[in-house]
Amino acid sequence: MVKVAVLGYGTVGSGVVQVIKDNQKYVSKKSGTDVDVKYILDLRDFPGDPYENLVTHEFDDILNDPEVSVVCETMGGVGAAYKFSKACLEAGKSVCTSNKELVAKNGPELLEIAKEHNCSYLFEASVGGGIPIIRPIMDALAAEKIESILGILNGTTNYILTKMKDEGADFDDVLKQAQDLGYAERNPEADIEGHDACRKIAILSSLMLGQTVDSEKLHTEGISKITGADFTYAKAMGKSIKLLGVSEAGENEDEVLAFVAPFMIDESHPLAMVNDVFNGIFVTGNMVGNTMYYGKGAGKLPTASAVVADVIDAARHVGKNVPCYWEGKEAKLLDFNEVSHSFFVRVKAEALGEIKSLVPGGEVVNADVPGQAGILTGEIKEKDFAAIESKLGEKILGKIRVYKEN
Amino acid sequence: MVKVAVLGYGTVGSGVVQVIKDNQKYVSKKSGTDVDVKYILDLRDFPGDPYENLVTHEFDDILNDPEVSVVCETMGGVGAAYKFSKACLEAGKSVCTSNKELVAKNGPELLEIAKEHNCSYLFEASVGGGIPIIRPIMDALAAEKIESILGILNGTTNYILTKMKDEGADFDDVLKQAQDLGYAERNPEADIEGHDACRKIAILSSLMLGQTVDSEKLHTEGISKITGADFTYAKAMGKSIKLLGVSEAGENEDEVLAFVAPFMIDESHPLAMVNDVFNGIFVTGNMVGNTMYYGKGAGKLPTASAVVADVIDAARHVGKNVPCYWEGKEAKLLDFNEVSHSFFVRVKAEALGEIKSLVPGGEVVNADVPGQAGILTGEIKEKDFAAIESKLGEKILGKIRVYKEN
Repeated sequence: MVKVAVLGYGTVGSGVVQVIKDNQKYVSKKSGTDVDVKYILDLRDFPGDPYENLVTHEFDDILNDPEVSVVCETMGGVGAAYKFSKACLEAGKSVCTSNKELVAKNGPELLEIAKEHNCSYLFEASVGGGIPIIRPIMDALAAEKIESILGILNGTTNYILTKMKDEGADFDDVLKQAQDLGYAERNPEADIEGHDACRKIAILSSLMLGQTVDSEKLHTEGISKITGADFTYAKAMGKSIKLLGVSEAGENEDEVLAFVAPFMIDESHPLAMVNDVFNGIFVTGNMVGNTMYYGKGAGKLPTASAVVADVIDAARHVGKNVPCYWEGKEAKLLDFNEVSHSFFVRVKAEALGEIKSLVPGGEVVNADVPGQAGILTGEIKEKDFAAIESKLGEKILGKIRVYKEN
Repeated sequence: MVKVAVLGYGTVGSGVVQVIKDNQKYVSKKSGTDVDVKYILDLRDFPGDPYENLVTHEFDDILNDPEVSVVCETMGGVGAAYKFSKACLEAGKSVCTSNKELVAKNGPELLEIAKEHNCSYLFEASVGGGIPIIRPIMDALAAEKIESILGILNGTTNYILTKMKDEGADFDDVLKQAQDLGYAERNPEADIEGHDACRKIAILSSLMLGQTVDSEKLHTEGISKITGADFTYAKAMGKSIKLLGVSEAGENEDEVLAFVAPFMIDESHPLAMVNDVFNGIFVTGNMVGNTMYYGKGAGKLPTASAVVADVIDAARHVGKNVPCYWEGKEAKLLDFNEVSHSFFVRVKAEALGEIKSLVPGGEVVNADVPGQAGILTGEIKEKDFAAIESKLGEKILGKIRVYKEN
């Protein structure tokens, strides 16, 4: 018998309780023991909720109850969530979390504490919501040297980009629509400026290398500058526009290039068909080649399902540590400015000649956008393109990198 | 230190040795102990091979060596492979296999023997080659009631269908081309008639239910009757033709509908972009919704990578059983004849009126195929459509089921 406590009865937390209760038969069978929820920690009361009798306001009720061996941290943030997670692990209780911010910030430390106290820190739900991605990287691709990870990691931005493409709508209109539907938050910056995707690619990069990639040091661009005109040109080139988290292993074991930016990708690339709020993650290994994982990257039940998969893993390994190969040592980040990309550049029509003279191999892209011209550059270093951008100033209306398969 | 023996030094077996040797650093790190190959069992000698000194012709060398704790069965077939696997498990040695035929036939028995002898029978490589699919179903989706599995499970047929679509080529020509390229065997029946996909969907169905689905009892159709004209009509409807393994959980716990047949699916369905020798598997759970797994479904190194992922799992659990929820009890197969599908039917032009009068909701499909007509039926039971087929005889030139999302 394994008793579970859920910290935070918000969207994901209430989903975790629902998955454990509704799928209890499957959860217990796969765990090899009965699994049930004993406590729900929240500052609020939930009168009328079917599980209101499980609610406590006192974390110590959970911490001091030896019967609780697994704790789900679904609070979010890096304050109380960190303090509670640490205390649980030090007490030998495994912690399963959907908190990508905390995993990105304190993952290695919490993993080390778990190891010392013969319990586990598990975070399948922190990346890709319901998509199995942490386990495939850790277990099913365990025999691989993972060479790169490329992912559509944020459902909100992918929904917005899909609508902009399908309906020819503008960014601001679609964002408002997404907010009304609950797909985007009232304060959408973390999503649309790429910070959410950045934390996720940092976690995946850390697992790829086994060393820590600090999300705060990664080049991160969002989608707020993408316009309808970009989609017009993309269509003319047979491409989709996607916000990608990119991670490529360097030549040395501890080197990695990681960043987040919108890309144009070929319509025939498997990631191009990842639409709406879905996420897709492309993982390339030196033996297996390309693999891809697809599903709902967010949402109450998909995310909760991933947390409960971790609960099952923890329940199977009570008193033992489920190993994770992620050290606290910081990986060496390759300099983004030195990387070369091909760019699609949108300029004022009169500046076409000027930009063509400045970039390598400029190929004009024909699309019917009044007053504008589009050009596809050859490969050029980020720092060199940035210099051209400074020089041309407002003559450049937009730029999007073009993804090229190796 | 974990010593491994590889049974059968053919394509996959030599791949396993290569993955363990070339990626030894990663394999050992993830195993938490040094892993190396001690024996290769084969009837042949391999003079000049870098590992010829590991080759033995005597299975007993392996069976009687207490240092060997993990055995990779990459022989294929259900004769010696069964005998050797059983003997190894009875001796407490874990067995990792790519042998789908043996897993489909004797999986539950070998799993039970492994459990009794505190070792493991692992078969990630038996379905989807290098694609992580067994583990996601068993572990990452452990909290789910899995409702359905839909997969492109055979690379040879997917290669042929992709070429037929892209090049407008005929089945026989593409098959010959595939044979010349080594993508299809000289005796291609197991692939093109769907038997290979059938064994794989039987394994996945068994894992979905936790009970045994006998591959020999499943309705199985291959792709040898698909023609260029079918692709002409498919294109007119915005659809792709794919050979799918289908498994749908029934209303009762032990019921399942499982079969293999070519389908027309919408171009916008994620499986439609699974082309060439790639495989894609769509798994739907009651909480997580749709998830998909994509990668190379066959080939030396991808398949070997999956075997070695199992070796790592076995190495982490020496002396213990890695549980698998698959009982020997036979699941109840729902009657294929009672299932309803919508059909695309290709008929001689003069028979259009007749078939239209016989099927529900017949919608004419316009495509420029001389002397032929195409019709899309409403939902009709398999047995009722079979009766119409008997009645019309040679007037019906072809039929393909149309996949409809629930």
